[in-house]
Formats: sequence, structure tokens, C-alpha cells
Amino acid sequence: MIVGIIGLGLIGGSMAIDLKRRGFAGIVLGVESDPVNAAAAGKMRLADEIVSLEDCVGRSDIIVIAIPVGAAVKMLPGILDMCDSGKVVIDTCSTKSQIVRAVHYHPMRSRYVATHPMAGTEYSGPWAAMPNLFDGRACIFANTEESDPKAVKTIEEMYDVLNMRPIYMNADAHDVHTAYVSHISHVTSFALALTVLEKEKDEKHIFDLASGGFSSTVRLAKSSSDMWVPILTQNRDNVLHVIDTYLEKMQEFRDAIAEYDSDKIEDLIHEANRIKKILR
Amino acid sequence: MIVGIIGLGLIGGSMAIDLKRRGFAGIVLGVESDPVNAAAAGKMRLADEIVSLEDCVGRSDIIVIAIPVGAAVKMLPGILDMCDSGKVVIDTCSTKSQIVRAVHYHPMRSRYVATHPMAGTEYSGPWAAMPNLFDGRACIFANTEESDPKAVKTIEEMYDVLNMRPIYMNADAHDVHTAYVSHISHVTSFALALTVLEKEKDEKHIFDLASGGFSSTVRLAKSSSDMWVPILTQNRDNVLHVIDTYLEKMQEFRDAIAEYDSDKIEDLIHEANRIKKILR
Repeated sequence: MIVGIIGLGLIGGSMAIDLKRRGFAGIVLGVESDPVNAAAAGKMRLADEIVSLEDCVGRSDIIVIAIPVGAAVKMLPGILDMCDSGKVVIDTCSTKSQIVRAVHYHPMRSRYVATHPMAGTEYSGPWAAMPNLFDGRACIFANTEESDPKAVKTIEEMYDVLNMRPIYMNADAHDVHTAYVSHISHVTSFALALTVLEKEKDEKHIFDLASGGFSSTVRLAKSSSDMWVPILTQNRDNVLHVIDTYLEKMQEFRDAIAEYDSDKIEDLIHEANRIKKILR
Repeated sequence: MIVGIIGLGLIGGSMAIDLKRRGFAGIVLGVESDPVNAAAAGKMRLADEIVSLEDCVGRSDIIVIAIPVGAAVKMLPGILDMCDSGKVVIDTCSTKSQIVRAVHYHPMRSRYVATHPMAGTEYSGPWAAMPNLFDGRACIFANTEESDPKAVKTIEEMYDVLNMRPIYMNADAHDVHTAYVSHISHVTSFALALTVLEKEKDEKHIFDLASGGFSSTVRLAKSSSDMWVPILTQNRDNVLHVIDTYLEKMQEFRDAIAEYDSDKIEDLIHEANRIKKILR
């Protein structure tokens, strides 16, 4: 099996590592438009060859689009244009509604499988790629009824090699749920970093006083704008809806603290503590 | 050296473990007002003996108050009443202004050293105690000019055994800085948990879709109300000030997303990314 990966960053690079060493991919072809990233990916041997987009699509059995979702939406139709019925194309993007809509009427739509492997770190680029990134995490398959069943099966096998649990979901539902569970926590981290950087002018204080708690809460604020600007604009309506609920909750907390209302603060914390029963 | 620890929870219990096994404390005496926690701490042998408060203060060379700050403020004057000049009393609380003020005119004030070891996890109780919790972290010493220099030196030696870096600070400054760097991130986590629990009724979705990012951002929402209600009310003014700045930043983000203003979102993310240069 030849797997072509477009975008050898955190996600694409990590896939390249595990698909190759676990034997699913005999050959990994990589496409990387950024010359520095391409040179680094080549030096790290993330792919067997760094090739052109046309070469990659022409030679690969599976084509993985692992670039920011804005660029992916633009690129996907052209890649399907180049495909025959022996190939499968997937994307790994964090929003699914727009990309699925962009190829809804494409004659080769059935060769495309929309996926979102729910794994990652706050780092990006080929230097962020690592083995075992996907192990044990969930992978969303969106709108599989629009894809060829055999193509879906091939991709299920691929993610099985990455030790991911498949979950099947409508693209619009995916975007609602990820707004709640993933996108909002990036926005809150960005806002937290902005607040602390503005108020605490002395960086040494931030370093000294940041116990593990602050570090983990602000970790996502290291995430790249290349990835997150298109996610937040593509999923605008859902994200705004969640931000508004979030602002209400913050205001409720603020009011309780302002009024020294210990009972109310305690109630809010007890309610928030329910997350303990859901997440380790 | 006999070290008496009042409150064998996460902080007190972890101190008990390391001070004993590293040889600083020949004997650790524990005081635990909650009968279940006392029984558990006894069974786990966190302390050599579980004793009464009076017994603990009477027999110990160093008395560590490691209970929520509301109770600590009430308890400290009475403990100093029982002290002679051979003993040193410290607290480990996360706010320092009120507790320092509560004993400012106490005749035994010089026997008290106000400290805040900046370490912890989101868990609490004797079952959360662990070895090496403090290694490499910062420990704030507040208003040391009000303490006897020899008492301060003894406590510096104790925290040195715990491998903590001492930092000296005025109590009021401490409360401002921890509002920025520690307290706000608990409030944002609580609000995030409340938002997600309200909007995402299906807990399985939260579990499935929570990649590492969400889990780390919401982690502090598991923190106990016993600890956090007194911190947030005692440090009310500073915390409100930081919450207000935070709400402004969230609103700025919200407006940029609402207007599909990619350039503005990108600027905000780049600015937030500066945290990368400060924290690992």
C-alpha cells in the first residue's frame, strides 16, 4: 500500500511514522508546500519521498489531506478530479461541515472519506510529529453514507492500525460537539494567556508562580494560528454559541465572588466537579 | 526534629511523606479533624501518630498548618497562643494577605513564617498525597521581615529538603500575582466545565471527543470547593480585577470570530503564543 500524505506536520507526520513502522504503508509519499518544513521532514525521514502534489495523488492508494482546514477545503475538489476509483482520499481536519459540503456534488465524492482523528498536542510542524500519537483516541468518521463502503472499510483498517476507536457522526453534529469540547477550550486558553501576559508584566513571575495548574490550563494557547483561524471562522456559529454560554457562566462566577456568596460559589464548584466522573 | 502537620491532605500529606523519608523529620505528628480522613491517613501511615491539636503543638518543633485558608486564618492565633520561642509555625495557604494581617499584632508573631509552596494537583485528601510533589517548584515566603530570622532559616532548610526554590514577596503582592497566574485559571476551568456540562448532555460525547487539549484545560475544575471558596472570597478584589480583564479578552475574541475577522484572530493568537517563550 502506498500512502500519500499532504502536509507533514504534527498530524500528517505522526501518521507517516506509525503507518510505516506498523507495516500498513509500504511506501509513504509526502507533500509539503513549505520549503523549510519540506527540508526538515526530509531530513527526519518522515516520508520515503517528498514529491509534488500531482505525483503524490498519481502514485498513492490512499491520499491523506492533513493541512489547515481552510486550505483543505480548497484543495480537496482538485484532488478528487485527479482520482480514479482505485484511490481513497481522506482529510483529518477539525471541522467537517464545510469540507463535506464542498464536494457534495463531486462525481468522485464516493472516493472521499471525511475523518477527524481526535489527537494532537499544542505543537505543530514536522518537528512536532511523534510515534503513538493516536493510540487509544477516538476518530470521527463523518457522513460515511456518502462514501463508497469499501473505501470506508480501507480507512477503518488504516485507523485501526493507528489504534483509534471509530465513531460515526453527521458532519454538522460533529461541528456542534467539537465546538463544545475542543474549540471552546482553545479560545479560553488563548484568552487566559492574553490576560496573564497583559496583567503580569514580569515574565519571571509568570514562570515562578505558574504551578502545574496554570501551565496545563494555558497550554493550548501555544497552538498555531494557521490551524485555528480557519477552524474558528468555519465553525463560527457553533463557537459563538458556546462562547456566549461560557461568558454567562463566568459572569455567574464573577457575581458570586463579588457578593462574597460562598454558598453560590460552592454550588458552582460542586456542579463543575461533575467533570471528575467523566474525565480522568 | 518533630514536625506536626495540621491537615493531612494533598499538601500536608505530601510534606509528611518527603520530610520523613528524607530525614528532616524524625517524627511526624498529624492532626486531622475529619474522622474519615484521619482514619485513612492513619491506615496509609502518612504520620507516625494522629494526635490532638494541643498535643501536636505541644510536642512539635515545627507546626505546619495545611488546611483551607478560611479555617487557617481562624486557627493560627490560637496556635501562636500555645507557642513558646522554641517553636516555629507556618502555613501553606494560597492567599497570604488576610492570614498575615490576622496575627500582625500577636505577641508571638515572630514565631510564624507565612509560606506558599506552589505545588499541587487537582486532587485533595490524604489519598492525594504523593512523594516528590514539591521538587523543583517555587515556594513563596511572605513578609519574612515580621518573622524571627532563625525561624525563617529553619523553614528555608525545611523547604530546601523538599527541593523548593524560595521566593520572597510581600503578602499583598503575592495575592495580586497568584490571582493572575493561579486563581484565574481555576475560575476559567470551573466555567469551562459548567459550560460543557450544560451544553453537552451526552457524557459519552464529552468522553469520546475530549482530546488531550480539553482534558488539560478543564483539569482544574476537579478542584475542591473546601479549598477554593475561601481563596476566591479572601482574594476577591484581585480575582475580580483579573476576571474583568479576562472577560474583555474573551469578548475581543468573540467579536473577531463574529465578524470573520481572520487578521484580528490571527493577531490575538500570535500575542497569546508568547506564553510559549515563558512556559514549557
